[in-house]
Amino acid sequence: MKKASKIIIGILGVSTVTAGVINYKLGEKVKSLEVEISEKKDQNKQIEIKHQDLGKELSRVIDDKVSIENRTKDIERTNQYLIELFNGFNGITYEQLSLIPSNIHGSAFPHNQLHYKLIGELGLPSSQNLWFYETYISSLNFERKVPNWVCQRIEIQDFKEKIADRKHCNFNNNTIQVPHHFKQENKDYWGSGWSKGHMVPAGDNIKSQESMCQTFLLNSNIVPQDLNNNQNFWYRLESFCKNQLINRFKSVTIISGPIYHHPNLIEQLDEDQLKSRPKYSKQTQKKFVKYEVIGDRNVAVPNYLFKIILVEPKDDNNNNKQQQPYLVSSFLIPNEPISSDAVLTDYQVPLHEIEVKTGLQFFKKLNPKTDIQSLCDSDPINCMMMTEKDLLPRLIGFCRSTKDINDLKNEYKHINWGDSLTNLLNSKSLEINQIEELKNQERLLKKQQEEQSKN
Amino acid sequence: MKKASKIIIGILGVSTVTAGVINYKLGEKVKSLEVEISEKKDQNKQIEIKHQDLGKELSRVIDDKVSIENRTKDIERTNQYLIELFNGFNGITYEQLSLIPSNIHGSAFPHNQLHYKLIGELGLPSSQNLWFYETYISSLNFERKVPNWVCQRIEIQDFKEKIADRKHCNFNNNTIQVPHHFKQENKDYWGSGWSKGHMVPAGDNIKSQESMCQTFLLNSNIVPQDLNNNQNFWYRLESFCKNQLINRFKSVTIISGPIYHHPNLIEQLDEDQLKSRPKYSKQTQKKFVKYEVIGDRNVAVPNYLFKIILVEPKDDNNNNKQQQPYLVSSFLIPNEPISSDAVLTDYQVPLHEIEVKTGLQFFKKLNPKTDIQSLCDSDPINCMMMTEKDLLPRLIGFCRSTKDINDLKNEYKHINWGDSLTNLLNSKSLEINQIEELKNQERLLKKQQEEQSKN
Repeated sequence: MKKASKIIIGILGVSTVTAGVINYKLGEKVKSLEVEISEKKDQNKQIEIKHQDLGKELSRVIDDKVSIENRTKDIERTNQYLIELFNGFNGITYEQLSLIPSNIHGSAFPHNQLHYKLIGELGLPSSQNLWFYETYISSLNFERKVPNWVCQRIEIQDFKEKIADRKHCNFNNNTIQVPHHFKQENKDYWGSGWSKGHMVPAGDNIKSQESMCQTFLLNSNIVPQDLNNNQNFWYRLESFCKNQLINRFKSVTIISGPIYHHPNLIEQLDEDQLKSRPKYSKQTQKKFVKYEVIGDRNVAVPNYLFKIILVEPKDDNNNNKQQQPYLVSSFLIPNEPISSDAVLTDYQVPLHEIEVKTGLQFFKKLNPKTDIQSLCDSDPINCMMMTEKDLLPRLIGFCRSTKDINDLKNEYKHINWGDSLTNLLNSKSLEINQIEELKNQERLLKKQQEEQSKN
Repeated sequence: MKKASKIIIGILGVSTVTAGVINYKLGEKVKSLEVEISEKKDQNKQIEIKHQDLGKELSRVIDDKVSIENRTKDIERTNQYLIELFNGFNGITYEQLSLIPSNIHGSAFPHNQLHYKLIGELGLPSSQNLWFYETYISSLNFERKVPNWVCQRIEIQDFKEKIADRKHCNFNNNTIQVPHHFKQENKDYWGSGWSKGHMVPAGDNIKSQESMCQTFLLNSNIVPQDLNNNQNFWYRLESFCKNQLINRFKSVTIISGPIYHHPNLIEQLDEDQLKSRPKYSKQTQKKFVKYEVIGDRNVAVPNYLFKIILVEPKDDNNNNKQQQPYLVSSFLIPNEPISSDAVLTDYQVPLHEIEVKTGLQFFKKLNPKTDIQSLCDSDPINCMMMTEKDLLPRLIGFCRSTKDINDLKNEYKHINWGDSLTNLLNSKSLEINQIEELKNQERLLKKQQEEQSKN
């Protein structure tokens, strides 16, 4: 192996230059590498590694740096544009956004495996005002003051340990990404008759108090929902996902949201309207979209809710996981009381229908022909929700007075309650009696004290 | 200056190593730089420039490369996310998006000075489904099948030369970024009584046929608009911007779009509704948002249109341009016929009101306290639109029959037409007479030919 070395030192103009050239042999050829250190007057010290008559292989170090720099500039330019998009959030700058503690406030950026998986494997339904929380992603609608959609993924290990409790969470609008004048407020719901409906269920987040409380954020996860629907059919649907599907499948991805489109709101024009039609109008009827808005902030009440469920089959024994398609079914549920004997498939619709009504695009990364099959059609058991009887323990838990107990008994008198449910109801009844008794005693005591103080 | 050089050649395991260390003096200190070239068996040749006991200054080259690489990775990750966002467009990949010829189809990316200025100086109203055309930016609403907003900027030189002509453009939905099932179609308007209302006026694009035709794209720039409103008040407003404001100001930025919020749609609950109210409801009336939808695609008809005008003062003689604030005024216009004696300020509203009703945020990059003043309040002449009389030449141009001429005369009989307008009307009348005469002759001729052929 040939070896050579040479050091050149010179003073060029105002620069002090120290440089070395190394000649060496690679294969049959002699190559040289020049290193130059210059210290210009009135400037910072500079170092350059130059290549001189080098073969392709040897100039890689230098070229790498140059090409990395170019690449950095290119993607930085596109990135500047991204930053601009994010400035959509309440005027917060990119730098400020990246400093937000995501465990408390969520973040404008994807920051955990769940986010990357949902983005990378499935694709997101839209890009409007995205916000990333520990266990879900939300797209916020600033006009309607509710989420456009929320997307979550649950697996069996999410329910192994119950750490979080609802009683430590409150509905609140501490959503820093939402400008003040676009915020829902708790008082918008007062007296409206609408309940605050979780899109991502609080109960899917028992393993972390922080992530449970992130489901109580008004603009990110809450829409005005019919109370009966919320506590009955919607609750059964949520339970179906977390009690049944996660046992049968590796993971369950759920996208939920409001729908404002109203397919059947058609009004016939009356005689006056027919006469005053504009030129060229041949309409005798008109179609409308109409939805209620509540409170000072005009929070939009959805006409329907949608839930799209995508499950990932468990790896089979032969490790053929790649060939197993995802299973998907989608449901369109009126935002009104739903009969307790309704079943899930009563509300099944094609995914396409929800897309047209919402303007969202679901699972863009999947090929609908090869990657997806129907969840409900593949095996009927996949879409069998819990019955109204299974729902009773929760409804008993909701009772707050003897009247509530009697109402419930009355409403479900067609059901054979059996010993277990009857015992549960009786013990709840006893509990309520005791509380009511205590309150009565308190009231009596107060009255006596008042009378004594008068005397 | 001290100088030193050392070459090490060795065979380490399976590797052939050629390395040089250069010692040199910078200031008072002796430094060394090690260069190592290794050629591992069964692998590609590798070069490493190592630093060994180097001062901070000298290790910069190496550190630079490492830090650039890290930075590249960081912004690439964020960038991947951006790419995902863009996949929202019709499943088109980032690579495909960047290959679209923007002069024909527009682009998902900002690509000219106008775009960078609007983004950088003012900020965009929202980030939903953005698309960049030669002379405007549009945000598309896939649910309502219309734009959320369009933003354009006009200057006096845009009207120096008339190259483009409307007759070479057609309304079309050749908007590749819009998935098929979210597209408006021309036939959605047929017989609906609604006209196709340009948000960016075609007439603001006379200097390029391509950019004029880009204003005829249905989902990007067209909403269902009342025909009278479109041809009269809205036209006067557009003319006011392009004939008056651009003469007085350096540039005129205009944001236009539809509004669906309906502030006054309040319905009292009747007795039955009061009885069937859900628990906890104390409402005796309900507020609603309601809007018409037309055609198979349910294109949403706005209840109002908004136009926000921001002007940039001309540089003054003292070059104090930086201290001059932008002037802004915003207008909320019912989507219905508007009286021909209405003036612009009748429809002026605070910017804030349009934000609350649309969920958009205007001019996020500007400080409303220091950067913006009111256009209309700063000088009344700034908001004086052309009168109905100024409008007559255009209305005469719209006439297609003797009946149209007579209708127009009748509608504007309260106005003193004067010689110039009367002459214009007479010559139009003559033109129509000649055309009608020709058509009559044609019809007669055809009839005669038919009779001859029968014989």
